[in-house]
Amino acid sequence: MIEIKQKEIKTAGIIGANGYTGSELVRLLAFHPNVSLRFLYSRSNSGTKISDLYPDLTTICEMVLTDQPEEVDILFLCLPHKESKNWLIQNPVKDSTLVIDLGNDFRLDGSFGNRNFIYGLPEINKKQLSRAKSIANPGCFATAIQLALLPLAQKGLLTEVYTTGITGSTGAGQSLQATTHFTWRNDNISAYKTLKHQHVDEILQQLVSFNKNQISLNFVPWRGDFTRGIFTSSTVKTDVELSDINQLYQDFYADEPFVKVSEKAIDLKQVVNTNRCVIQIEKCGDVAVIHAAIDNLLKGASGQAVQNMNIAMGWEENSGLNLKPVAF
Amino acid sequence: MIEIKQKEIKTAGIIGANGYTGSELVRLLAFHPNVSLRFLYSRSNSGTKISDLYPDLTTICEMVLTDQPEEVDILFLCLPHKESKNWLIQNPVKDSTLVIDLGNDFRLDGSFGNRNFIYGLPEINKKQLSRAKSIANPGCFATAIQLALLPLAQKGLLTEVYTTGITGSTGAGQSLQATTHFTWRNDNISAYKTLKHQHVDEILQQLVSFNKNQISLNFVPWRGDFTRGIFTSSTVKTDVELSDINQLYQDFYADEPFVKVSEKAIDLKQVVNTNRCVIQIEKCGDVAVIHAAIDNLLKGASGQAVQNMNIAMGWEENSGLNLKPVAF
Amino acid sequence: MIEIKQKEIKTAGIIGANGYTGSELVRLLAFHPNVSLRFLYSRSNSGTKISDLYPDLTTICEMVLTDQPEEVDILFLCLPHKESKNWLIQNPVKDSTLVIDLGNDFRLDGSFGNRNFIYGLPEINKKQLSRAKSIANPGCFATAIQLALLPLAQKGLLTEVYTTGITGSTGAGQSLQATTHFTWRNDNISAYKTLKHQHVDEILQQLVSFNKNQISLNFVPWRGDFTRGIFTSSTVKTDVELSDINQLYQDFYADEPFVKVSEKAIDLKQVVNTNRCVIQIEKCGDVAVIHAAIDNLLKGASGQAVQNMNIAMGWEENSGLNLKPVAF
Amino acid sequence: MIEIKQKEIKTAGIIGANGYTGSELVRLLAFHPNVSLRFLYSRSNSGTKISDLYPDLTTICEMVLTDQPEEVDILFLCLPHKESKNWLIQNPVKDSTLVIDLGNDFRLDGSFGNRNFIYGLPEINKKQLSRAKSIANPGCFATAIQLALLPLAQKGLLTEVYTTGITGSTGAGQSLQATTHFTWRNDNISAYKTLKHQHVDEILQQLVSFNKNQISLNFVPWRGDFTRGIFTSSTVKTDVELSDINQLYQDFYADEPFVKVSEKAIDLKQVVNTNRCVIQIEKCGDVAVIHAAIDNLLKGASGQAVQNMNIAMGWEENSGLNLKPVAF
Repeated sequence: MIEIKQKEIKTAGIIGANGYTGSELVRLLAFHPNVSLRFLYSRSNSGTKISDLYPDLTTICEMVLTDQPEEVDILFLCLPHKESKNWLIQNPVKDSTLVIDLGNDFRLDGSFGNRNFIYGLPEINKKQLSRAKSIANPGCFATAIQLALLPLAQKGLLTEVYTTGITGSTGAGQSLQATTHFTWRNDNISAYKTLKHQHVDEILQQLVSFNKNQISLNFVPWRGDFTRGIFTSSTVKTDVELSDINQLYQDFYADEPFVKVSEKAIDLKQVVNTNRCVIQIEKCGDVAVIHAAIDNLLKGASGQAVQNMNIAMGWEENSGLNLKPVAF
Repeated sequence: MIEIKQKEIKTAGIIGANGYTGSELVRLLAFHPNVSLRFLYSRSNSGTKISDLYPDLTTICEMVLTDQPEEVDILFLCLPHKESKNWLIQNPVKDSTLVIDLGNDFRLDGSFGNRNFIYGLPEINKKQLSRAKSIANPGCFATAIQLALLPLAQKGLLTEVYTTGITGSTGAGQSLQATTHFTWRNDNISAYKTLKHQHVDEILQQLVSFNKNQISLNFVPWRGDFTRGIFTSSTVKTDVELSDINQLYQDFYADEPFVKVSEKAIDLKQVVNTNRCVIQIEKCGDVAVIHAAIDNLLKGASGQAVQNMNIAMGWEENSGLNLKPVAF
Repeated sequence: MIEIKQKEIKTAGIIGANGYTGSELVRLLAFHPNVSLRFLYSRSNSGTKISDLYPDLTTICEMVLTDQPEEVDILFLCLPHKESKNWLIQNPVKDSTLVIDLGNDFRLDGSFGNRNFIYGLPEINKKQLSRAKSIANPGCFATAIQLALLPLAQKGLLTEVYTTGITGSTGAGQSLQATTHFTWRNDNISAYKTLKHQHVDEILQQLVSFNKNQISLNFVPWRGDFTRGIFTSSTVKTDVELSDINQLYQDFYADEPFVKVSEKAIDLKQVVNTNRCVIQIEKCGDVAVIHAAIDNLLKGASGQAVQNMNIAMGWEENSGLNLKPVAF
Repeated sequence: MIEIKQKEIKTAGIIGANGYTGSELVRLLAFHPNVSLRFLYSRSNSGTKISDLYPDLTTICEMVLTDQPEEVDILFLCLPHKESKNWLIQNPVKDSTLVIDLGNDFRLDGSFGNRNFIYGLPEINKKQLSRAKSIANPGCFATAIQLALLPLAQKGLLTEVYTTGITGSTGAGQSLQATTHFTWRNDNISAYKTLKHQHVDEILQQLVSFNKNQISLNFVPWRGDFTRGIFTSSTVKTDVELSDINQLYQDFYADEPFVKVSEKAIDLKQVVNTNRCVIQIEKCGDVAVIHAAIDNLLKGASGQAVQNMNIAMGWEENSGLNLKPVAF
């Protein structure tokens, strides 16, 4: 076979490359066929090789972290929440640069100077994202819970939702805390931010725009004793038959490469180290439970950022995202 | 100091000593000041030393499993669900023997010949248990969820309850299954028996007897990637103030040695390897969440069986149950 | 940029695709640019979709397992040890087919009819492998330990070696055993096949061919409480300076894409979900310790099989093996 | 039965009660029949309830940490290494007080003013310990490795020893470090202090006093992905038959309540949450491997301290140490 193709290469930089989501982006972009990583920015680790911070990157990416950003085609912001806006103010970026923010600065209100950040959940905003220059990447729990509820919201079937979700320790970032100490966390389960998780507003803003009427989301997040992944179970009342709900979900996600609706039992490790979301629905009487699982660092953060980049650049949506599942 | 006391020693036997709950009873009774273990019964492992099956028992208990039960003062049934009744039919037991069944044969209907099995949740039935000759030990999830909800039920405050619970692998017993394979279960989370767990009936029967009116319990059980413990979060609506709920719980459990209501964050490992239950309540608007944690093999099974024995025999309720927490 | 290239596509089949190494090959070959998977063979699971056995493969590979092998360019044998030879006798394969055996049937003696299996450790046999039609893929511990010792063996510096290695549960395969039960294995460590592991002969046969004189290898394997990976520490006596040993290793592996010698501390997760081996040497007095880490299912099995295929087919050695590390 | 006994009660205090070994002592002493805990000393956490630091201690011990030590009969020092000596200089203690130091200040040289610290490994020094007023509690790895080697040393059979040991995260204490971060440590294995662990000197000092001739101990410690426990495998050359070695070990430990020599496979969880050590010996040709397992916080620290206290006070050696194994 003879292939003739013009491979487009675009330059990219990562602000906050020293954190978990930043380094995970490096792992993805290092093998992306259309991206040339130009710089990795970190104030605190400037001068250090990224592969010294994350030795798994040895031979994959050995760039030195810098505090001097350059002009690039695509800029990823992997900063702590509430720091992206300040960074952009202090480091103005050309209008033509695609900016993808993995923080939560622009998720609820995307307007910022000339820019208008589009909420980067491809399964609802693909068309706008394909034209976007500014993308607000969703939160990890927000991604899992929205994907679990969107088809019902679209039909106006949501009123009261009860969700429990469990997250791996990478969700808490790399800072050393009592609740990320191995001795404490191993074999342990605990609740945090009960009914007050910051992703609830983000979820409701999107769901309500579909559902039209009011939704109440009672969300209990748990800390899990594993590193990667999110598993959520959302309980709702509905008299729609299970087979119809399954059909509704299958139709809603028919063209989505990364969302799979299963009629068999799902489990978290089906998606770990992939950009996929698996969903399963069960029903008993008029109560339905929707389970969903994602990798919090991939579909819940850096993988979805690459997916959004692909869409915005007109590349294959799964480019650089054909990841071997860890499976075991 | 000079102590003069008459220490009562009673004989005990365990039917099904080769399983997890049976062997856990051995670990407890071996150090109980008032109990002399007389026999360990197992059909499948007859002739084998219990310490060959469970080498941690070496030097603690090296009895040989037998298929010949003897007459004893206290008989524990640790059989698979639905086998206790048959066993008692085939092996008649004297009326004076205290029988404690850890299975679910007598939880919903305790009548059996001359015997009337009392539901063995000491926090509601202590008086009856103190006179009982037949005790139906509660299920593990049933224990955690009831302890989390009883004070509200007693006030008639329950209508709709949404509970998620996660259990360690010992809850699935020692049989080898796909879902107990280490390769599958390590770092994994999954749901099972969604809305259909067999403990729901047991829970509702007790709660409704308190609550007076109808309760609906939507229970989503998860398999956890740890061996011991149960953590549950139950979400309910109520306009009672958090401080009043806390007071209600403190009062309800004031005299209970094994239930502790905490106003600080709780976590599973606070109770692992103990007979304790810790409970914490959080509230936001008119929604309350009650978290509870137990060790599924202790307060959820064998520990509670010993607690029930102590009550029925008139011994100190925590006799043999002053267990060092594993903590880490 | 304009690329003109002729992409070669070869057909492949997997015998024993239902096991861990077989399914891991599916995960790799599904994304390999030069391979078209033609069939997945399994006697026991014939008729079942591979993605029903391993749901992580949903959308990645949904082929149905068959008991009818076809003619292919490349054939992988992923059978239990001692079954490959029988399979080839009962299912004759064309001489032109590249056969890669992941079992141990041909590791010590590669002659089989017209075929002569080359020991598939690319770091020593790359030239022969590039012309091979029959490859005996090394064992997992054998790979890690040889890579740790080869540079010393080449210089004739080995006499007595003391190695401890720890392996993840996937090394024990998917059968349900007492030692792969989650309840037993979680947080547990144990030794097995002390001084008698079947890989010792395989290791010595290769090392001695380099080292010229006798080597004794005292190997203590441990079962670890994780799923993927092997970590080994080998202790030897030598008066060569550490800096010289490091140089020796750097030189030996200078052209190897998958072996990295580090002067900093290594850890197992640096290589999990990759085809890489990391090595670190430490020294105190005349005693040197060589640490090595691999992913037992990748560099220790299926990844190395793909690497061998790439070499034998004249493709880029890392084709299909640019795997995102799981890292966390 | 009528018992008449005079129960002796002694007062005790813990210096450094806020750390892991300190809090583990609290867990043990709270249930010890002859000990009345008088104070828990901590400079950094003075004024805080111990059960606020370690909520598992709720209802078990709710003492407030103080920076005012009192006079007590028994004083435990649970300070970071190198701080015990200073503490004793700054806080003189009556000669009649039994001082047990869990640090390493007095292990190699026990002389300190009027005091002479006895090395607190009961299996070799029981007689001296029974008269001791000052006890240097051994290190965790030092305990496991000495118990594994003592019978051979006693017969002068040791020359060259190769030991690998793996330890749980509690061995690293409660400080937050990169290597105790859950995200890093979960499912990970790594070596540290290769050939340079501080316990080697302590081990050799004792072994050589038995063995008479020189011993070289090549010790490679690993960090394990579990919280509690130590497992070691020590390889030595000897032409003594395995049955004779087993007999030697059985004889050596015949009267020891906490050391058990097994001819069957041992594993770490047989001893977790107990004060026991299990040992197994395997042999192939002239090479013997001795495996040993302990709980690093109990037989490796606080449990052994209680055992030493019992011996020094003339109480039952296992008083307060009949701990239920966690087993699963």
